[in-house]
Amino acid sequence: MPVKGNAIVAQSGGPTAVINNSVCGVVQEWLKNEQIGKIYGGISGIKGILDGDIIDLGQQDPAAIEGLRHTPGAGIYSCRYKVTAEDQVKLIEIFKKLDIRYFFYIGGNDSMDTAHKTYLAANDAGYEMAVIGIPKTVDNDLPFTDHCPGYASAAKYLATTVRETGIDLESVSTKNKVTILEAMGRNAGWLTAAGALCKRRPEEAPHLIYLPEIAFSKERFLSDLEQVYKQLGYVYVVVSEGIVDEKGQYCFASGSVDAFGHAQLSGAGDSLKQLVEKELGIKARCNTLGTAQRSATHFASATDAKEAYMVGAAAVKYAFDDITGVMVTIDRVQEQPYQSRPGMVHLEKVANVENKVPLSWINQEGNYINEDFLTYARPLIMGEVQIPMRDGLPDYVRLDFNKGKIKL
Amino acid sequence: MPVKGNAIVAQSGGPTAVINNSVCGVVQEWLKNEQIGKIYGGISGIKGILDGDIIDLGQQDPAAIEGLRHTPGAGIYSCRYKVTAEDQVKLIEIFKKLDIRYFFYIGGNDSMDTAHKTYLAANDAGYEMAVIGIPKTVDNDLPFTDHCPGYASAAKYLATTVRETGIDLESVSTKNKVTILEAMGRNAGWLTAAGALCKRRPEEAPHLIYLPEIAFSKERFLSDLEQVYKQLGYVYVVVSEGIVDEKGQYCFASGSVDAFGHAQLSGAGDSLKQLVEKELGIKARCNTLGTAQRSATHFASATDAKEAYMVGAAAVKYAFDDITGVMVTIDRVQEQPYQSRPGMVHLEKVANVENKVPLSWINQEGNYINEDFLTYARPLIMGEVQIPMRDGLPDYVRLDFNKGKIKL
Repeated sequence: MPVKGNAIVAQSGGPTAVINNSVCGVVQEWLKNEQIGKIYGGISGIKGILDGDIIDLGQQDPAAIEGLRHTPGAGIYSCRYKVTAEDQVKLIEIFKKLDIRYFFYIGGNDSMDTAHKTYLAANDAGYEMAVIGIPKTVDNDLPFTDHCPGYASAAKYLATTVRETGIDLESVSTKNKVTILEAMGRNAGWLTAAGALCKRRPEEAPHLIYLPEIAFSKERFLSDLEQVYKQLGYVYVVVSEGIVDEKGQYCFASGSVDAFGHAQLSGAGDSLKQLVEKELGIKARCNTLGTAQRSATHFASATDAKEAYMVGAAAVKYAFDDITGVMVTIDRVQEQPYQSRPGMVHLEKVANVENKVPLSWINQEGNYINEDFLTYARPLIMGEVQIPMRDGLPDYVRLDFNKGKIKL
Repeated sequence: MPVKGNAIVAQSGGPTAVINNSVCGVVQEWLKNEQIGKIYGGISGIKGILDGDIIDLGQQDPAAIEGLRHTPGAGIYSCRYKVTAEDQVKLIEIFKKLDIRYFFYIGGNDSMDTAHKTYLAANDAGYEMAVIGIPKTVDNDLPFTDHCPGYASAAKYLATTVRETGIDLESVSTKNKVTILEAMGRNAGWLTAAGALCKRRPEEAPHLIYLPEIAFSKERFLSDLEQVYKQLGYVYVVVSEGIVDEKGQYCFASGSVDAFGHAQLSGAGDSLKQLVEKELGIKARCNTLGTAQRSATHFASATDAKEAYMVGAAAVKYAFDDITGVMVTIDRVQEQPYQSRPGMVHLEKVANVENKVPLSWINQEGNYINEDFLTYARPLIMGEVQIPMRDGLPDYVRLDFNKGKIKL
C-alpha cells in the first residue's frame, strides 16, 4: 500500500505538441487511486510551486483533463527557472505543509537536474516522498531513453513541412533556387535530422543537412550547395539553429544567455541565406518555423502522444511501487511492429547530460544522415492524433486555474 | 458544339496548397469531352510553353491526376516570367502548330496580365482560340472574385499556427514574452488578418495585427505592444511582410526586384523582434513560416480545395460555351450555410489590379481587424482535406513529365 499523501505535477521548459498527454497520464492514473490523496498542479513549473501557485487538478472538468491529450503548449504552464539552495529548502517546506508525498516533474535536461536536486533535498530533510522525472523535449537529447516524448511529433511536422516546401521549391524553378529551413535543437541534431524522413528520391528535398554534432564550415557549405545546384538547379537545406564552428563555438549566437546560462541562438538559417546570396549570387529563402515546431498538435504523431501519456501514467505506478529518484524512460522492445514500454533510470545519471546523434549515423561528408537514423526515427512518427475541430480550426482545451486553488 | 482542337493548361507564380485542384478540374472536365482534342500541360508556366516543354496530360495515370487534389506545389511546375511582345508572337505560332484552341492559365495578378496579353495577341493574329484565366493566390488580392483559391488554406494553416504558438507563448511566461509571426501578402493584408480567426478570448493570441493597408509607425507599434504587455505579460503580433511607412515605402525591403519589377521583401518580423528587444528590453521571438504558408496541404481547407477544383472545371465549361478573355471568379451566393458558384470577369479588368482589405474592416487604431472580416473569412476555412498517409507522412503524387512529351 503506497504512502498516503498528496501529489503534485508540474511542467518545465519549452512545451511540446504532446507534453500535456503526460499531465493527463499522471492525473488520470492518480485518480484511479484517489483514496491516497489529492493530485495538485503547480502552475508554471517549480517557480509556480515556490510562489504558491497551486491548484487541485481533481477539481477540473474531467473532459478538460482528457482534452489535454490533444492540446499544445503547457496545459498547467511552464517555466525556465534554476532553483537555488534556499528554494530547495522552501520547496520541502511547502511539500510538508501541503502533505505532498509525490512530485512528478515533466521536462528536459535542466528540469531533470531540478528534480534530482529536489530528490536530494527531500532526503536531506528526512522527508519521505517520491520524486519522479517525466521526460519531454523536442530536442530528443535526454540520455538513457530510446527517445523523448515530444520529439516524434516535432519530427513529423518538420518532415511534412520539408516535403511540402520542398515540392514548392522544386515546382517554381524560375525564382528562389535555395530554401533553407532552420530547425530547433540546441546541441543535438535529432530534429534537424528528421528532415530526411520525407526524402524518397535523390531530387527531392532535403539535399543537405547540417547538425550541431559536426563542425560547420562556411566554405564546405558553399561548395556542397554549389554542387547540388549544378546538378538539380535548386537546393533544399535543413540546418540546426545550433551549428558550431571548428572551435565548438555557436556559429550564430545572439550574445545573451538564459536562466541556465545557455547561449541564446538566433538566425543560423537567415545567416546562411544571406551567405548564399552574397557569395554565390543565388536567390535563397529561409523558413524559420520557430515555436510552431514544438506546438503543431494539429499534426502530432499518435505514437508520440501515446508514449507521452504512457510515461506520465508509469510515473504514478512507479511511485506507488515505492520507487523514487528516477526518470521514466521509453524502452524500445520490438522493431516490427514497433513496440515500446516504460523503463527507468536514476535522475543523477540523467541530470544535465546531453544525448547527441551518434557520429556513425552521419555521412562522411558531414552533410547528411544515413539509414541507421531513418530506421530509428521512422516508427516514432506513425499515426495521427484525432483533433476535435470547431469553426474550421483545432478546438483545444484550457484548464480553469481559478478552480481548486490551494492556500498555502 | 465547341471548336475542335487541343487545349493547354499551365500554372504561374507562387503555388498554393490547392492550386493543383484547379489543374485536376481542368483535366478531368476536359477528358469528359476528349473527342474535342487533347489536353496538354505546359511545364513551368508560359516560360515552359515558349521553351516547348509540353506534355499530353491525357497520358498521365488518372490516379496521379486525381492525386493532384491533395498535393502541394505546382504539379506541372510554375514560373515567374514577364512575356515580351516577341514572346507573344512566338506563343501564337506554337498554339497554331499544335492546334491549341484553348489556353487555361492558373495564376495571380501578373498571370492574369499574361493571359490578357495572350488573348489580345490571338485576336491580333486572327487566331480563333479561348483564353481563360483561373485565379489562385494566397494573397487573395485578385479583384472581382469574392476570394481566391489558395487563400483559405493558407488562412486556416496560419490561424492554426497562431493558435498553437499562441498557447505556447502564454504557457511559458518566464522566457520569451513576445512572439511575432510574419505573414505573406505583398500589398494586401488578407493572410495577415487571418491570424484573428483563432481568437476567442481577449487574452488569447493574436493581440496585434499589422496590415500593409495601414501606414506602419514604429513608435505606435512599440506603444501598442507595451500596453498589451503591461496587461497580460505577453504579446502575440501578426505582421505582414509588406508593411509600409507613411510614404508608402516598404518598411523592410531587401533592395532587389523580381522579374515583374516588384521589390523583394525580407525580414519585417525579424526586424520588429529586434526593435522590441532593443527599445523595450523584452525578449521576443519571430516565426517566419515562409513558403510553408502556401504549401501546407496537410491542413488545407476542404472548402478551398473544392472551390479550386470548381474554378478549373468551370474554365473548361466556359470555353466550351465560346467564352474567352475572362477570368473565372468565385461568387458567394449564400451565407448560411455558405454556398458559392463560379462566375466570370473580363481579363482586362483584372490584370494588374490589387484588391486590398477594406479600410472599414480595420479598427481605428490600425492594429487589428473587425467582425466584418471574420464574417467574410470564417466559412472559407471550413473542413479538412483527407490526405493519404504513408510511413507517417502525407503521400503526395508526382506527375511523370517523361510521359507524352510533345514535339514542336
